[in-house]
Amino acid sequence: MAPPGNELTVGVDLGGTKIQVAVVDRDGGVVATHRTATDLEGGPSKAVADIVRCVHACAPDMSVIGAVGVGVAGQVDAATGIVRSAPNLGWRDFPLADRLEQVLGLPVVVENDVRAIAWGVWNHGAGRGIDDLVVLFVGTGVGGGIVSGGRLLTGDRGVAGEVGHATLVAGGRLCTCGRRGCIEAYTGGWAIAARAREAIEADPEAGRGMLDAAGKGEVTAVVVSQAAADGDRLASALMEETGDYLGSAAVGLVHALNPRRIVLGGGVIDGNPYLVDAVAYAVQSDVIPIFADRLDVRQSELGSQAGVIGSASLATRRMQDGSLA
Amino acid sequence: MAPPGNELTVGVDLGGTKIQVAVVDRDGGVVATHRTATDLEGGPSKAVADIVRCVHACAPDMSVIGAVGVGVAGQVDAATGIVRSAPNLGWRDFPLADRLEQVLGLPVVVENDVRAIAWGVWNHGAGRGIDDLVVLFVGTGVGGGIVSGGRLLTGDRGVAGEVGHATLVAGGRLCTCGRRGCIEAYTGGWAIAARAREAIEADPEAGRGMLDAAGKGEVTAVVVSQAAADGDRLASALMEETGDYLGSAAVGLVHALNPRRIVLGGGVIDGNPYLVDAVAYAVQSDVIPIFADRLDVRQSELGSQAGVIGSASLATRRMQDGSLA
Repeated sequence: MAPPGNELTVGVDLGGTKIQVAVVDRDGGVVATHRTATDLEGGPSKAVADIVRCVHACAPDMSVIGAVGVGVAGQVDAATGIVRSAPNLGWRDFPLADRLEQVLGLPVVVENDVRAIAWGVWNHGAGRGIDDLVVLFVGTGVGGGIVSGGRLLTGDRGVAGEVGHATLVAGGRLCTCGRRGCIEAYTGGWAIAARAREAIEADPEAGRGMLDAAGKGEVTAVVVSQAAADGDRLASALMEETGDYLGSAAVGLVHALNPRRIVLGGGVIDGNPYLVDAVAYAVQSDVIPIFADRLDVRQSELGSQAGVIGSASLATRRMQDGSLA
Repeated sequence: MAPPGNELTVGVDLGGTKIQVAVVDRDGGVVATHRTATDLEGGPSKAVADIVRCVHACAPDMSVIGAVGVGVAGQVDAATGIVRSAPNLGWRDFPLADRLEQVLGLPVVVENDVRAIAWGVWNHGAGRGIDDLVVLFVGTGVGGGIVSGGRLLTGDRGVAGEVGHATLVAGGRLCTCGRRGCIEAYTGGWAIAARAREAIEADPEAGRGMLDAAGKGEVTAVVVSQAAADGDRLASALMEETGDYLGSAAVGLVHALNPRRIVLGGGVIDGNPYLVDAVAYAVQSDVIPIFADRLDVRQSELGSQAGVIGSASLATRRMQDGSLA
């Protein structure tokens, strides 16, 4: 069934809640997929075992697999495949690529999850064929990737594109990174939830709709999105403000990078696709004219499979590069 | 005197107050220089005539000149050499490269002035040999250039690196570009002056020192810098705040681009070199650790000749590229 010559690669999306694994063909098509919950208490060794189990579940015949790509939510030294820091997993300085290579007997590349997604968006998604591209994924956290002049920027240590921690409001809201005023501290899912809880506390009457929607649970970004969709005024105001923040973030990135296209994705965008229009409006109204010449804003087409497709296509590219043994 | 074979190039720095021209060798050394005041009322044609006059004053023997590079304060379409918009000159859509080529009989490249400076900093200044570099020039306005993976980023329309208009405070102070909250709207010379005037109005007693220093003139960024150097408390507080803003701007750029080095220059930096330390401190304390691994912050070494050296070295490179006839 599979084409000969190791034409397939495996993509792994390793996050704080789930491990998703897929076998992906050269065109970014998902051939098979498998997922499991992340066992945070089991630590890195359990994660390695779980990834291997999922890979074998997807690919009973490993001889058709050429390489494995892993996207991890955290700071990754892509040159060595060491996960430097993954707060959602509780990992520090774990040599994930080496460990997986030992068990799987295949070349493994490890990259930050959103940089892997950016690679997938560029090769197989809404950024296909675009030489100057900014990818902004807004989920619980915010991350991205930058393509400029037909290359994915890596920076000095392989961690360029951490646009969630670009500045949005100097000295503003506290971020999970410890600094104040990052894009993520206003627009990430956790930040939308925090802003909503503050707004409810400030005006409990106006916040009743969101509290009712949350029931016995917490007010999360999903609750805010749903309440906004149901016409709740405070929730709608919060999401409108989120659109303004994302727009302002995008305008800043456009002036720094002069992209041809911005691709937005992630859970917050998928749950509130009108945010794509808000960003498109902001960049068309607010950027210096020459920057708007050919700029457009699109939603990612890859949905929840962006992570595995991106990681797999990164493995494909590294294989073609010869940068994998 | 000059080496054979058109080894020299001419650099032109065209701004709203002066036109500076220099003959520059391949090592970035200035062989001869000439300057004149910009005649704003004379418009583009007068500027072309003035540039040509300065070129001939610097280079009596034009046969040793291989090409001419011009840096213009404004938006430039570098591919065509058309100045799209130069507010300080009052120009729109002027084909500067074509006009100069007709008169000089030499290939001419035109670039945004700060992007040309970034090129010079990278080739002959404090960014020499650095593959991942952010250049931030803080003068009346704020501009920059980004080198990533050993290439100066151009973006889709050749205008990448307009970091003065990256976001610093979403919805914040009004900028000359029409938007709110740009880095320039807090840290550019005009913005420092505006912030000082507001602070003086809010507390005339505390502002007396700056008003005295200004005498019959306006409170400018130079007056604020001088008053701060003389120990004036309000002026010192304003400059300290400027350092905080620049630091926050730099941290955001570091997270987006993961540079190995940041080079700061321009009149505001040259007049207040302690701002380099403020930025260095901010990035070392506030960036996500992996981004700080090898990052350093330096002051530009090229001083007021950064513009002509940068423009000339851009012309050299284009000649070597073969992208000039």
